[in-house]
Amino acid sequence: MTLQWNDLIVRDARALTASEIRDLLKVAERPEITSFAGGVPDPALFPLDDFNTVYQDLMADDAAGRRSLQYSISEGLPALRQWIADDLAASGAKRDIDNILITCGAQQGLDMLGRLLLESGREIVVEKPTYLGAMQAFSMRRPDYVGVDMDADGPVIEQLEAAFAKGTRVAYLAPDFQNPTGRSYSLERRLAVLEVARNYGAVILEDAAYCKLSYDGTQLPSLLALDETQGDPNAGCVIQLGTFSKTLAPALRIGWVTAPRPVIERLVLMKQAGDLHVSTVNQEAALRAARRLFPGHIEGLRDAYRHKRDTMLKALDDFMPEGVSYTRPEGGMFIWLTLPDHIDSRKLLEVALDDAKVAFVPGQAFFCDHSGSNTARLSFATEKPERIRSGIERLAALIKRVHNQY
Amino acid sequence: MTLQWNDLIVRDARALTASEIRDLLKVAERPEITSFAGGVPDPALFPLDDFNTVYQDLMADDAAGRRSLQYSISEGLPALRQWIADDLAASGAKRDIDNILITCGAQQGLDMLGRLLLESGREIVVEKPTYLGAMQAFSMRRPDYVGVDMDADGPVIEQLEAAFAKGTRVAYLAPDFQNPTGRSYSLERRLAVLEVARNYGAVILEDAAYCKLSYDGTQLPSLLALDETQGDPNAGCVIQLGTFSKTLAPALRIGWVTAPRPVIERLVLMKQAGDLHVSTVNQEAALRAARRLFPGHIEGLRDAYRHKRDTMLKALDDFMPEGVSYTRPEGGMFIWLTLPDHIDSRKLLEVALDDAKVAFVPGQAFFCDHSGSNTARLSFATEKPERIRSGIERLAALIKRVHNQY
Repeated sequence: MTLQWNDLIVRDARALTASEIRDLLKVAERPEITSFAGGVPDPALFPLDDFNTVYQDLMADDAAGRRSLQYSISEGLPALRQWIADDLAASGAKRDIDNILITCGAQQGLDMLGRLLLESGREIVVEKPTYLGAMQAFSMRRPDYVGVDMDADGPVIEQLEAAFAKGTRVAYLAPDFQNPTGRSYSLERRLAVLEVARNYGAVILEDAAYCKLSYDGTQLPSLLALDETQGDPNAGCVIQLGTFSKTLAPALRIGWVTAPRPVIERLVLMKQAGDLHVSTVNQEAALRAARRLFPGHIEGLRDAYRHKRDTMLKALDDFMPEGVSYTRPEGGMFIWLTLPDHIDSRKLLEVALDDAKVAFVPGQAFFCDHSGSNTARLSFATEKPERIRSGIERLAALIKRVHNQY
Repeated sequence: MTLQWNDLIVRDARALTASEIRDLLKVAERPEITSFAGGVPDPALFPLDDFNTVYQDLMADDAAGRRSLQYSISEGLPALRQWIADDLAASGAKRDIDNILITCGAQQGLDMLGRLLLESGREIVVEKPTYLGAMQAFSMRRPDYVGVDMDADGPVIEQLEAAFAKGTRVAYLAPDFQNPTGRSYSLERRLAVLEVARNYGAVILEDAAYCKLSYDGTQLPSLLALDETQGDPNAGCVIQLGTFSKTLAPALRIGWVTAPRPVIERLVLMKQAGDLHVSTVNQEAALRAARRLFPGHIEGLRDAYRHKRDTMLKALDDFMPEGVSYTRPEGGMFIWLTLPDHIDSRKLLEVALDDAKVAFVPGQAFFCDHSGSNTARLSFATEKPERIRSGIERLAALIKRVHNQY
């Protein structure tokens, strides 16, 4: 009997669909394309020599080397969690190492929190637009999405409150240099978000993936730091997702979830059942690299990415026609483009790849309600400054041409 | 408002319970305890110098080093999948690299296959006893377990057939040197299992974690190799789980799932949504280590573990009283002890830790129906031979004493 995979595969797994970014990236990888599509760090900025030293030091130490190749506890290495706790404390969020779980990148944190808090029939608030990867992770639990509009200061509070008033109890928010828009919340909006969440007993999942990549002065405190815990690290309503992917190297797959103990205890069991623990050797390497490199390396990243951001903004200012608007992010890797209403960015992409040899990500995929057909995500992270400028010039010329055809 | 985590956490996540092995291992780690409880490789056998060379070679190569620190595709590195495909082909299972997905250890393969094939109301066949970690992974999907008894040649076919006849469509089986019993299936039983699965259109999840660790001559072909695919790598009913955890190093967290394309395609989407991909640097290190070390390193592991197995079997033969029986595994890391009916191995463990300074895992946790209260799992993998012999001697003396109290 031939196997009937469609019958054998369960509904949760059938809810998965291929990511548009992923398929797109295959075309954008061709060398003749200037790609603003990727969301990946610039590999030229990886501290390769330091990693070489870190791995040599580790493997030359018999005891540490063998320990780093062995199974380890599901929570993550205590010394790494202590480093993260210290770093959080320095940013104003005082938590214990028992409030931290090491995950395979922040992406696994999203997946695990989806498995913890979501199921068919439950709702989750997401920003419009939001991080596509978060929706992909959550969608395996088949929740209903409640989209909340964003203004210049963050999510529209009335909409957030309305969602909570109707019974939604989880919100996924990215207050710093959001992927895909680059937008950040004002301090006032952060406080307002926390107040309304507290009033309704709702959980905030705070995505802090980009928070270290700030280019214009002081960083605002995170929701985790602003959460009113009255000194109790297990009180509060914020669960924060962090990662080394943007500051050290994505390939280590080291992220973390910071949360009250009742959450961490469940997640540790889930981690143990799901894949035992994050690679011991990678945790050890990340810890040694962070101790060795931070904060100097972060300053270097900020300088390099700030220059790229400024280059892209200058090019947008110089070349984009009337009717095109864009964000001016103070950090992160992305600028969000809003085109005239009648321009469909998916169609634009096809021409852009063929004619202008430029790639970007059409914005629609980032909206839970599939709106935003006239929007696009531009990343300034990977291309060199001179290619950023000429790529934007070609893209602007194409948009001008397409605009005039109507 | 204080958060009500019990209300916020969904039912699937509440199904998770703490592993007894895990809590036990904390006590067993004390240096005065001779531990037969762990299921981990002997760290003295890790090829540390080779890993030092592998990491140095990788990080000293600018292009390869930077690539190994960057994001990569969810399927896993093509060269690593090719190595695995070649290794499978050498064992008689001809599959393409598109039939292989790299996972964070075989444990993640179990979790992902649970998410693919199981949900509340669906059933899965498991051996009695079975690998505890598999039940932990599957339990997040809240399936019903159908336990099948084992005889000396493998699962009792009549029971397997009865389960399939009643509608169960998935079976999780470990034909080689099973954790926890060390038992292997005969060739005839392997063929019979496949025939009955095929007749009912059922899927076999074959756990091949220990298959390379054979100590007594020729390895029998895997279910994957015996599956009748008529040359089509996408036909067949076997999904196999493999890993480098027992042959290179567990901390790399490199496992793989080999399956027909319709399964791999779904799993790739799940991997992307779940944690993007397995650590690039670890995949690269594992590939370089496997190329450099196999098969010589495997031979070394076999020699070392064979000696430990023989030491434990000899000690059991020399010291265990009448009424105690045990398996004589031809590979793997475990021996399965069956005590007189009236001895509860959980209670025995408490005394064993206190008096005999010996740890083992009570067998009940490995049974889906919580039977087997008079059984225990002994690992010979980590302790040195002289400690194995004296530990078994003390355990045997304790059992004799407890036995005589009745």
